[in-house]
Amino acid sequence: MILTVTLNAALDITYRVPRFEPSASHRVSEVTERPGGKGLNVARVLAALGHRSVVTGFAGGPTGDLLRRLLAGSPGGERLEDALTPISGETRRTVGVADTRNGGTTQFNEPGPVVTRTEWDTFCETFRARLGEATAVALCGSLPPGLPVGSYATLVRAAQSAGVPVLLDTSGEPLRRGIAARPDLVKPNTDELTGLTGFTEPVQAAREARRRGARAVAASLGAEGMLVATADGGWRAAPPRRIRGNATGAGDSAVAGLLSALAEGQAWPQRLARAVALSAATVLAPAAGEFDRSAYEDLLPRIDVRACASPVV
Amino acid sequence: MILTVTLNAALDITYRVPRFEPSASHRVSEVTERPGGKGLNVARVLAALGHRSVVTGFAGGPTGDLLRRLLAGSPGGERLEDALTPISGETRRTVGVADTRNGGTTQFNEPGPVVTRTEWDTFCETFRARLGEATAVALCGSLPPGLPVGSYATLVRAAQSAGVPVLLDTSGEPLRRGIAARPDLVKPNTDELTGLTGFTEPVQAAREARRRGARAVAASLGAEGMLVATADGGWRAAPPRRIRGNATGAGDSAVAGLLSALAEGQAWPQRLARAVALSAATVLAPAAGEFDRSAYEDLLPRIDVRACASPVV
Repeated sequence: MILTVTLNAALDITYRVPRFEPSASHRVSEVTERPGGKGLNVARVLAALGHRSVVTGFAGGPTGDLLRRLLAGSPGGERLEDALTPISGETRRTVGVADTRNGGTTQFNEPGPVVTRTEWDTFCETFRARLGEATAVALCGSLPPGLPVGSYATLVRAAQSAGVPVLLDTSGEPLRRGIAARPDLVKPNTDELTGLTGFTEPVQAAREARRRGARAVAASLGAEGMLVATADGGWRAAPPRRIRGNATGAGDSAVAGLLSALAEGQAWPQRLARAVALSAATVLAPAAGEFDRSAYEDLLPRIDVRACASPVV
Repeated sequence: MILTVTLNAALDITYRVPRFEPSASHRVSEVTERPGGKGLNVARVLAALGHRSVVTGFAGGPTGDLLRRLLAGSPGGERLEDALTPISGETRRTVGVADTRNGGTTQFNEPGPVVTRTEWDTFCETFRARLGEATAVALCGSLPPGLPVGSYATLVRAAQSAGVPVLLDTSGEPLRRGIAARPDLVKPNTDELTGLTGFTEPVQAAREARRRGARAVAASLGAEGMLVATADGGWRAAPPRRIRGNATGAGDSAVAGLLSALAEGQAWPQRLARAVALSAATVLAPAAGEFDRSAYEDLLPRIDVRACASPVV
């Protein structure tokens, strides 16, 4: 089982409008809703890949109820165990407005509920209790208001004590603080990596992130694939062709790829190939945040993985 | 008691963002939620004015539950009786995004749930049952998918049979069909009136709307106030000064003004003055769709009402 943590889960709402115009009134032609927040996206991709996953984090209010109902009804939902901690606040929504004319998406993200100290303590009990069965842990996304900035560092240390490999995918100060607790893997994109280290060149930035505490760094390079820097060496992986589409959720699919392959005992090059193939298949899927299974199966054997010539460690 | 009908009720969500940009991602700095849909807005203003109101229409799903909870907690909520018909579909949301920098608001309106024939029949039973206690009826807003375009005409005829004065505030084909059933009053804005009659000049357009079946026409003229054309003559009313602000809900406040004054036995000039004062006090209120009570009390005696010199009937 892979333990996923989504501290700021969301109901992701997508609106399609025929022609987006600021300060105008729009009739929405299509509404879709799905459970969101990075850790939940990871859990849904894991379930689609046949892996069991326990979903932890917070859910509250009518939006939280709806999120839980949609989660249970997800494809592969029987492999998702809902262990979300109930809270008195209300789960946030995100609204993405897709302009069907020019393909652009305008995104609005609510800040999320205030999580109390007691609710955080209850969550931590659940988290520690479930660590015993976990083959890996994914800590994903932003922190809701009210939680200390060092919350991910606390969870990284708990996973380390239990001897469970832990991946951290967040940004800003929670990433800076979390990385110092020595997670097994961080998965920043280039912007997050630059924000953390000050370096724009990915190899240099990944090396600096390892120096700050990450045991391994998997840096997503957008259309160019992924770079991984570990104690055993570095690899780069790239798709066989340039992939165009909606990149929403591509990073979460990469996390699911890395962790599912780790759980299956695969080596770094295979983990990386799976992450890049899943990420590309997510960009190619018609619905934001889903992945196209046949594209994934087609791409997986064609991902170009090579050891880095220059030292990345 | 005033019977209000909101066939396409909504949860109105307002987001504040510091700087609105198409195709960008925004962190929402403030979220507010309130029960919406024109008839519900009318009911809330009636309650604030001390009038009892029975709220009918449809509510379903988690959004419908939240709407009912917020309705019960509205100021004056003890004067609002929730008689909404439960449906299997989900109540729609509207999302308004207010740019705190330039003051513009971008609006997204979901289409609403599909209402089945059985749900419509249940609603009609409730509507007919409550007509007996009503001093007036307000039929407000758009129709949800699934309802026949002549639904308002059916309700107008039911109110007429029960001898209860009925106001219709809608647009497009539902207005065209509803007006032919001879409602006591319609309250179009200038665009709706032009859409209905083809005339851009309000006096001429109001006369044409009466010819098509409306016993009286109260045309809202935006910042210039309101024009009313009745069998007993015509009046115009205007605020003492130009009012600037957010016009959201101003038309619904005008409807509440017209109906509350009618229920109190007041004559046309007094009804019109109240409608224009409430409408202006809504534009002046800081929160969209609320009215500023002290502005209302200050403006009411200063509304300029005069009989029309030219024949409007």
